[in-house]
Amino acid sequence: MSENIRIAIDAMGGDNAPSAIIEGSLQALKVRSDFELIFVGDEKRIREELKKYSAESKNVRIVHASETIDMSEHPVNAIRSKKDSSLVIGLKMVKNKEADCFMSAGNSGAVLVGGQLIVGRIRGISRPPFASLIPTEKGVSLLLDCGANVDARPEHLLSFARIGSIYMENVMGVANPSVGIVNIGAEEEKGNALVKDTYPLLKQDGVIRFIGSVEARDIPFGGCDVLVCEGFTGNVILKMYEGTASMLLKNIKKSLMSSLTGKIGGLLIKPSLKGLLTTFDATQYGGAPLLGLNGLVVKMHGSSKAKEVKNTVIQCADFTERKINDKIQAYAQTLQGNANNNT
Amino acid sequence: MSENIRIAIDAMGGDNAPSAIIEGSLQALKVRSDFELIFVGDEKRIREELKKYSAESKNVRIVHASETIDMSEHPVNAIRSKKDSSLVIGLKMVKNKEADCFMSAGNSGAVLVGGQLIVGRIRGISRPPFASLIPTEKGVSLLLDCGANVDARPEHLLSFARIGSIYMENVMGVANPSVGIVNIGAEEEKGNALVKDTYPLLKQDGVIRFIGSVEARDIPFGGCDVLVCEGFTGNVILKMYEGTASMLLKNIKKSLMSSLTGKIGGLLIKPSLKGLLTTFDATQYGGAPLLGLNGLVVKMHGSSKAKEVKNTVIQCADFTERKINDKIQAYAQTLQGNANNNT
Repeated sequence: MSENIRIAIDAMGGDNAPSAIIEGSLQALKVRSDFELIFVGDEKRIREELKKYSAESKNVRIVHASETIDMSEHPVNAIRSKKDSSLVIGLKMVKNKEADCFMSAGNSGAVLVGGQLIVGRIRGISRPPFASLIPTEKGVSLLLDCGANVDARPEHLLSFARIGSIYMENVMGVANPSVGIVNIGAEEEKGNALVKDTYPLLKQDGVIRFIGSVEARDIPFGGCDVLVCEGFTGNVILKMYEGTASMLLKNIKKSLMSSLTGKIGGLLIKPSLKGLLTTFDATQYGGAPLLGLNGLVVKMHGSSKAKEVKNTVIQCADFTERKINDKIQAYAQTLQGNANNNT
Repeated sequence: MSENIRIAIDAMGGDNAPSAIIEGSLQALKVRSDFELIFVGDEKRIREELKKYSAESKNVRIVHASETIDMSEHPVNAIRSKKDSSLVIGLKMVKNKEADCFMSAGNSGAVLVGGQLIVGRIRGISRPPFASLIPTEKGVSLLLDCGANVDARPEHLLSFARIGSIYMENVMGVANPSVGIVNIGAEEEKGNALVKDTYPLLKQDGVIRFIGSVEARDIPFGGCDVLVCEGFTGNVILKMYEGTASMLLKNIKKSLMSSLTGKIGGLLIKPSLKGLLTTFDATQYGGAPLLGLNGLVVKMHGSSKAKEVKNTVIQCADFTERKINDKIQAYAQTLQGNANNNT
């Protein structure tokens, strides 16, 4: 690329900010270095952190922000009142094309509200979803919406299906991705009112490849590229997946440590298990982009450590390089064109 | 007990019927024998299965049913048209006090519809929920509703909280059980419209011990005795839990078998892991009762094997012996009395 990708990073957002944010971002520079890291936040604290590392100064810049939005603040109020927060300044940089993307591990609601109010939505996309890549037995599925729209309507779920298909095709290289709707049974007549109303829309849509209902039990086993649901359900799925895996692995470890043969066995199985744990490590895919904005905004877990931050930086660079937003935009325009032709 | 508990069993329902149903039911007789098993279904097939075992004939009875409701049949139509099905006959036996309870691994929707239409609801309980005990790191939580009411309203969730508290106190012996609402954040203002409207009802209720929102990530770690949500979310939680655990354990096993050191390590860790797997085996708790009917109706997984059937028979006997339904009924009356006093 002729020009470096400019990645604005909320240095103050998340439980482990700013240390893990800066550590992880700098680690990404070791993987690829054709981007500029713009740390947004308290300049003094960022400089102190940066002193610990010997990063190339040409790749790192600081934009000072005097305020921070806390995890518990009311999103709308916070975005409106804290104009000098790292979150608002970072989002404005994307809006003003001073950065190609913005990533934050801060207040999810504020990222969501700020993304829409400041960066703005692509014309034709009324409800941008949070999209998370989740590892499965067969590979990876894109789950959306993961929490941006908790009371979504059928037409929103249809747009999630379309945007998700673009993402999987262009970012993950899946040709003609399959789309399923999360449901509580495999039959078409199963589900709540939202699912029953959405099902025919997905079935009749000529653009996506709809394969029907997917039960939650089958999600970890994979078999579907794009998984569509409203934000409450998506958030529950994502967190049940994380919680169950983390609880089980913790207890397996604990039970092995409780006996000598367990300890020895544990040492022997370590190499075999390592590959498995890497395969099912969700942080390898980085954060959840808010898809459908006039710029890229990515939300990381509040508890993100350096590794997730690093992977999110690389994800941001890939996403920008592959011009995914242009593709979503072009797509939204085509749909609008079709809609106009039909009327 | 002076009189035997009469447990009617749908011998024809489920993927493994009638063999696993009969095998599991007879296994339960080895744990306690103060009940009568009433197999409802095709008499000839049941007799053929029974020939394989040497069960005491005084504990086993057959009630012939010429029809079977399939898993894919429309619940309401099936209940109305198949009057001679094992499901309808079994439910009628509960209605007519010819059996103390009825258990089935058949069509969930038909169990739900039939339970309400044939057995009938306790006065004051408008939406009986499916209640599942789920193993957690700290012990066990009761999750309700697990799929009976997919578009429930706030007042229904309040009744789930109350019924669930009675269940945990009386069946599981938890004094003053804690109640949480499944949510996508810990703060009171988080959630979808249903959760936001239900939260104040639970908070203001003087009967239950409400502890606030519980995020899905924390569910496997426990910390709450009764977990309340509407049926779609509950079903997704239950199935994500099962699916994630089953996928991970399958892949751990597979990865160990892929190398010699893994295989040896696997043998060494087997004793340590066995206890763990027993702890987190959901089938140990039996099926999901449909709480709030004028009799006990329990739904097992469609895929139930002998073990879950056995545990459900024992669960049915315990439930009947402890007169849980009388307690829910007494409770519903008190609430109605209070409601009348308040008006």
